[in-house]
Amino acid sequence: MARHVSDSRVEMTEIVMPNDANPLGTIFGGRVMQLMDIAASITCFRHARCNVVTASADSLEFKGPVHVGEAIMVRSWLNWVGRSSMEAQVEVFSENLLTGERRRTSTAYLTMVAVDQDGKPTEVPRLELESDEERMRFRQAGERRTQRLRLREKHRMEEAE
Amino acid sequence: MARHVSDSRVEMTEIVMPNDANPLGTIFGGRVMQLMDIAASITCFRHARCNVVTASADSLEFKGPVHVGEAIMVRSWLNWVGRSSMEAQVEVFSENLLTGERRRTSTAYLTMVAVDQDGKPTEVPRLELESDEERMRFRQAGERRTQRLRLREKHRMEEAE
Amino acid sequence: MARHVSDSRVEMTEIVMPNDANPLGTIFGGRVMQLMDIAASITCFRHARCNVVTASADSLEFKGPVHVGEAIMVRSWLNWVGRSSMEAQVEVFSENLLTGERRRTSTAYLTMVAVDQDGKPTEVPRLELESDEERMRFRQAGERRTQRLRLREKHRMEEAE
Amino acid sequence: MARHVSDSRVEMTEIVMPNDANPLGTIFGGRVMQLMDIAASITCFRHARCNVVTASADSLEFKGPVHVGEAIMVRSWLNWVGRSSMEAQVEVFSENLLTGERRRTSTAYLTMVAVDQDGKPTEVPRLELESDEERMRFRQAGERRTQRLRLREKHRMEEAE
Amino acid sequence: MARHVSDSRVEMTEIVMPNDANPLGTIFGGRVMQLMDIAASITCFRHARCNVVTASADSLEFKGPVHVGEAIMVRSWLNWVGRSSMEAQVEVFSENLLTGERRRTSTAYLTMVAVDQDGKPTEVPRLELESDEERMRFRQAGERRTQRLRLREKHRMEEAE
Amino acid sequence: MARHVSDSRVEMTEIVMPNDANPLGTIFGGRVMQLMDIAASITCFRHARCNVVTASADSLEFKGPVHVGEAIMVRSWLNWVGRSSMEAQVEVFSENLLTGERRRTSTAYLTMVAVDQDGKPTEVPRLELESDEERMRFRQAGERRTQRLRLREKHRMEEAE
Repeated sequence: MARHVSDSRVEMTEIVMPNDANPLGTIFGGRVMQLMDIAASITCFRHARCNVVTASADSLEFKGPVHVGEAIMVRSWLNWVGRSSMEAQVEVFSENLLTGERRRTSTAYLTMVAVDQDGKPTEVPRLELESDEERMRFRQAGERRTQRLRLREKHRMEEAE
Repeated sequence: MARHVSDSRVEMTEIVMPNDANPLGTIFGGRVMQLMDIAASITCFRHARCNVVTASADSLEFKGPVHVGEAIMVRSWLNWVGRSSMEAQVEVFSENLLTGERRRTSTAYLTMVAVDQDGKPTEVPRLELESDEERMRFRQAGERRTQRLRLREKHRMEEAE
Repeated sequence: MARHVSDSRVEMTEIVMPNDANPLGTIFGGRVMQLMDIAASITCFRHARCNVVTASADSLEFKGPVHVGEAIMVRSWLNWVGRSSMEAQVEVFSENLLTGERRRTSTAYLTMVAVDQDGKPTEVPRLELESDEERMRFRQAGERRTQRLRLREKHRMEEAE
Repeated sequence: MARHVSDSRVEMTEIVMPNDANPLGTIFGGRVMQLMDIAASITCFRHARCNVVTASADSLEFKGPVHVGEAIMVRSWLNWVGRSSMEAQVEVFSENLLTGERRRTSTAYLTMVAVDQDGKPTEVPRLELESDEERMRFRQAGERRTQRLRLREKHRMEEAE
Repeated sequence: MARHVSDSRVEMTEIVMPNDANPLGTIFGGRVMQLMDIAASITCFRHARCNVVTASADSLEFKGPVHVGEAIMVRSWLNWVGRSSMEAQVEVFSENLLTGERRRTSTAYLTMVAVDQDGKPTEVPRLELESDEERMRFRQAGERRTQRLRLREKHRMEEAE
Repeated sequence: MARHVSDSRVEMTEIVMPNDANPLGTIFGGRVMQLMDIAASITCFRHARCNVVTASADSLEFKGPVHVGEAIMVRSWLNWVGRSSMEAQVEVFSENLLTGERRRTSTAYLTMVAVDQDGKPTEVPRLELESDEERMRFRQAGERRTQRLRLREKHRMEEAE
């Protein structure tokens, strides 16, 4: 069985509220991460049709501030699917509602694992790729996975020394 | 001027509430990220004595679930300080309050930038290292920084092709 | 100046959390209303490029329950634009993430007024209609407006008697 | 069995907080709706002595802004009771705590349905009317019900064409 | 100038939500304290017509649990008014909405101080007592005040030893 | 069986957010009480290894304001342990993150009772005292207990008259 990338795309829109923001009136990075994780969770849950847990988040970048009163849009889709793991890409855009200006402010790659009722990893449907862009993203996700595992192993050995 | 790692350590303790958790009753990764970002922000704010914004978060791992009703402890300290950037390490522990069992469940490295009232990067005090462990962490943080910048450059070029 | 209906469409996706729900585990109508109002506010703010306040909400229907752990999608667009008033239609869908089943569960028509910094009504761009469906919705919104004003007048007189 | 209107009256008082408000510092309509729905739910739950779900909300008007730091009072009582449906009227007042000025800012009629543990409609006690005002409200609620059903039917047919 | 006890009475009604409760499903004492403090703040703000800050809370008792899904009613009124200090009494009642059973579950005496825009204590109107019950409460509040100041002084001296 | 005071110490750190604060921008006393209650609950839960409920809170003092954007630290430890009751002391410190200035702003003594799954009081481990300071605090907690019971009895009789 297989599902397409388009089957599990998610779009969220929110207004940045005072409690989301630091004393400068710009959104906390952690609030952005929380929105990203929710969007990625819904994407992976939709693909897997079972509960998912966040395994890791690589390369979260915050390229510019989002201010209180601005809109924040979060878009999430699947880049890569393994046996029980999935990588979702999440992009965050800010929109100044007074000027209409939109900017991409953050990007992240979240790895989620499908789990059964006991929290054990469980198999997920295949991801049917449909375009060159989807294939490029699938390949890059694989590279990030390799890179991530290698760096972690290196530091684990140093800590053990 | 310089400050020590111990000057800006942060410890947070919370109880995991129903609204922090997915249908399996385990905390959302995004809620953990939010707690980590708050702890790292206070650490960096304490060192810099000025506002800070999250620039990136590398290598967030979630090694095990934290359940509703358990305590969650978040510890944050500085690994590395540059001109206006700082890397904080954040570790998360769960504690089953009925059995007393504690486990380390997540680790992350957050890069924060000190900013002035206009949101422009501003210089921060030096980090005075005091032990071999602090020096090892300072060196590894530098490696992560190099690795991160290199991987990003590679993907930026591929996207531009 | 004019903008299209498509320029201000909004889509929101959320997971229903325990604190959104009554003791039966189904979302409070008031929480749905709050999501609808936020979506309609962003739609009207996007069209008007100025702050908006909710003037009235007619005909909110809740056709079925949305359960804790399900996804809730809110879609909002403009039906009608006057001098400073706008009517947004908001539709709410539930999605059972385990089965993929989606249902439309609520519909509402919210009237918002564009206001300046002093809270006084201010003029908004015209709505450029592009399809027969958009024209039918424009006409029905006008009917609802007439109906609403007439019924209110009637009860106001009865209260004054 | 029967209960009186006075048996299920509800009064709520809150202070408007920054997160309840738009960038102009006035409460979101959706937050007011949420408070109204909670008040009406408690009123109907008290009368029915079983869980209730919101079926519809007609004619919510927002006559003036409520500002951050002001108090907001919500009063709710029953207008009409059918077999398993009930109409609650909810009125919202703002109070400027510095001047003591109070104003009625919103009114709504919410229809709730009493449900059993499976979410199926269940019978509720009769409403024992005690004054001419209660009898006038009972009659007007019936008119709103008729009007609402007629308008909906009309649009349903247009949509089906 | 003077105001009556009845001029600043406050009543709040809430439903206990999952996030207000511990793993046993009963409301946290701290959540009850927060509701009490809000009610007392509104009472004192109404009497003083200026901002107030909480100075102390004596003798909070929690006589029984309030469960998720139950209603909680908070009533607050003034017992005593000095130059810039006021003592509010707050009583909390739980109501099981399925059975109609109500119980008084907590009582507290909160002392608030009226402050000007710089946070400095400022004079408040006199409290015009109207009944024997109000006079008894005024006298008991004075006793609590004396008792509280004496006990604090005693421990301050022991700590200084 | 016995546990030490150090086994159940808790430290929490938070940033004061806009929604925690009154119109003057200083934290609500009730929000401080809520943080204190959570800290004391975790302390008592850790000692007892079973659920705890708040029985009373004596002598909460709020010695100075904590402002939005400042850090708030809450420290909690056990003073006294009876058969099923425990007294935790909670101290609150504010920290101005721009200047580094720290001040103790509140102190409270919370009495908690260990309860089993049915909410009935249950026995807790003994508290093994290790220093003169711990012994002085144990003794003072006993005095507060006596004082509290005596004053309550006096007022109960007056109310009954």
